[in-house]
Amino acid sequence: MLRVTWDAVTAEKGGYDHFMLKEIHEQPKAIRDTLAGRLKDDSVDLSWELSGLSDDLKQIDKIHFVACGTAYHAGLIGKSVVEKVARIPVEVDVASEYRYRDPILTPSTLVVVISQSGETADTLAALREAKKAGSKVLGITNVVGSSVAREADEVLMTWAGPEIAVASTKAYTTQLIAIYLFSLYLARLRGTWSEEELKRATAAISALPEQVQRILDAPEAIQRFARSIAEHEDLFFIGRGLDHAVVKEGSLKLKEISYIHSDAYAAGELKHGTLALIEDGVPVIALATQPSVYEKMVSNIIEVKARGARVLGLGLEGDTELAKSVDETITIPETLPLFTPVLAVTPLQLLAYYTSIARGLDVDKPRNLAKSVTVE
Amino acid sequence: MLRVTWDAVTAEKGGYDHFMLKEIHEQPKAIRDTLAGRLKDDSVDLSWELSGLSDDLKQIDKIHFVACGTAYHAGLIGKSVVEKVARIPVEVDVASEYRYRDPILTPSTLVVVISQSGETADTLAALREAKKAGSKVLGITNVVGSSVAREADEVLMTWAGPEIAVASTKAYTTQLIAIYLFSLYLARLRGTWSEEELKRATAAISALPEQVQRILDAPEAIQRFARSIAEHEDLFFIGRGLDHAVVKEGSLKLKEISYIHSDAYAAGELKHGTLALIEDGVPVIALATQPSVYEKMVSNIIEVKARGARVLGLGLEGDTELAKSVDETITIPETLPLFTPVLAVTPLQLLAYYTSIARGLDVDKPRNLAKSVTVE
Repeated sequence: MLRVTWDAVTAEKGGYDHFMLKEIHEQPKAIRDTLAGRLKDDSVDLSWELSGLSDDLKQIDKIHFVACGTAYHAGLIGKSVVEKVARIPVEVDVASEYRYRDPILTPSTLVVVISQSGETADTLAALREAKKAGSKVLGITNVVGSSVAREADEVLMTWAGPEIAVASTKAYTTQLIAIYLFSLYLARLRGTWSEEELKRATAAISALPEQVQRILDAPEAIQRFARSIAEHEDLFFIGRGLDHAVVKEGSLKLKEISYIHSDAYAAGELKHGTLALIEDGVPVIALATQPSVYEKMVSNIIEVKARGARVLGLGLEGDTELAKSVDETITIPETLPLFTPVLAVTPLQLLAYYTSIARGLDVDKPRNLAKSVTVE
Repeated sequence: MLRVTWDAVTAEKGGYDHFMLKEIHEQPKAIRDTLAGRLKDDSVDLSWELSGLSDDLKQIDKIHFVACGTAYHAGLIGKSVVEKVARIPVEVDVASEYRYRDPILTPSTLVVVISQSGETADTLAALREAKKAGSKVLGITNVVGSSVAREADEVLMTWAGPEIAVASTKAYTTQLIAIYLFSLYLARLRGTWSEEELKRATAAISALPEQVQRILDAPEAIQRFARSIAEHEDLFFIGRGLDHAVVKEGSLKLKEISYIHSDAYAAGELKHGTLALIEDGVPVIALATQPSVYEKMVSNIIEVKARGARVLGLGLEGDTELAKSVDETITIPETLPLFTPVLAVTPLQLLAYYTSIARGLDVDKPRNLAKSVTVE
């Protein structure tokens, strides 16, 4: 087996205290690099890269996203986006479960495996299982020449550059970008989106690097909130729709490097049990970036507030309502609702980072964890 | 003069201290009642009850399970079981998310909504959305004449009897039974299982009430473990495959009534982040009832043990290996792997109950929660 390991000596921290912070700040460039050459004439063109799947992409009637950890969270976004944009039913599985659940695979199923390293053992095993069953496999990976890159039928590379910190950041955002490009390309191939819609999406996705930069340039509110939660041992994230997928990633980041026990819930599910855990002073981070569920989300925020939670609301710039229902607010620039996850996750990455710092922990090498999980 | 020592409420509890304990103990009868009249000639016959869907059940190419809270966890089991037994692709959604995610619904999609009360607001809204889109709806509910019972195209009743405790127990197990019956009936209709396989399954499912009774008759090990975790504020459940769905329900039960912050993880995902939370002395409850993933599960148990976790292993009777890797063991009778969730959840319900008692809490009326969530 080829084992690609990045040499930490050659990848310097570039003036940042930790690799993680450096990698968070590299996201505008990583997104730009991942978009480069793939947007043409106000639309998305992957025809050259995915030429080996061009017939399949028109005919597939089912997509499975399969991945682990952070990449799995990218897959959750993938389900929402592909279904909305291309109207193909999607399932998302953690690779360690997928392999053993005897998934229903046909020649018209496309399996999309996502792995930063391209060597994640369970993901690789899923890839092989899918190929054996006669399904086509698209790999999304960050490492040229990795096992995923070599064994998948086609590959969509993310161009995040080497990721050293154990907690993945720029790999995740570029996985999202790859998923968006893939979804828009599907929509174009299958005629589910008009030229006008594709044009708007192309413009919006092109603006993301600059918008992420604006979030990175103003970390003060996040630093403040990080210090305020550093003494807590429990914390909850809530969100609906795409925000639910984003809070899962935000919660994982926080757990990985701050060891605060956090959870991410679909906000509408709280009443069905978890609300029992909300007590006076417990921090809750609530995302409210999705217009279609905004009112419902504010109701859920009021529910946790009523039980004494201290709520940080993350909303869109120009939202003057949210601040009335929460204790503190962080805003992100507006984009198409579909693309908001890229902007919403950035403050959550920073929050995890600054919380870990405030707790005096080793950000880049959290306890018990390895960068690439190459064993099952 | 006759001295009445029981007040009316105690009398309703049938000698048990709480409704929840009474309802846990009613499960053998509830399962028996839910099976009654539905097993015929060594097979499952729902032709009379589901006559309105008889053509659809042969033709559907997609099933969506939609529910909230505990019923959603029954749906998770449903996905595994239906896919394995009838080879129809299944998606499972929490109802509050489903409504807003613009699900792909066709006339050949069957939507199965699950609600004990039949009045859960989000579930009911999902039912209506599915019907409007031209899909057929099967309701699984415990209340005759409820909105779900009236509005679904067909209904599969659970016969659990009235459930009073906020934390659902017998409703969940009978929902599982309804799902098993439905899956086996599908397998029979569509010829995916042989008569011999159906015969074996019928025998195994018929034995479940007596097997649950055996677990209820020996609660001592569970009571002991409950006392030992009562002082903890954090706890983790792990499992793979069907055990993963079961630990989600076990974790929810514990959260609801003990307020211990617990989580349920797919054991293979721990290495991708959550392992960072495992530290010396933290209790982990590990299910290892599924033969196909048993070895992998034991590896995962060894991982958390190596980080200092105190592990309760829940395995099958006759498993002499598990005890070597864990601190304490609870066993359940053997059945078909597909049906194990009914037996595995019973000790977890008892664990939640006795932990709540050990913490001096109000088992039947946990803070912040209502029995039926009839608002969105």
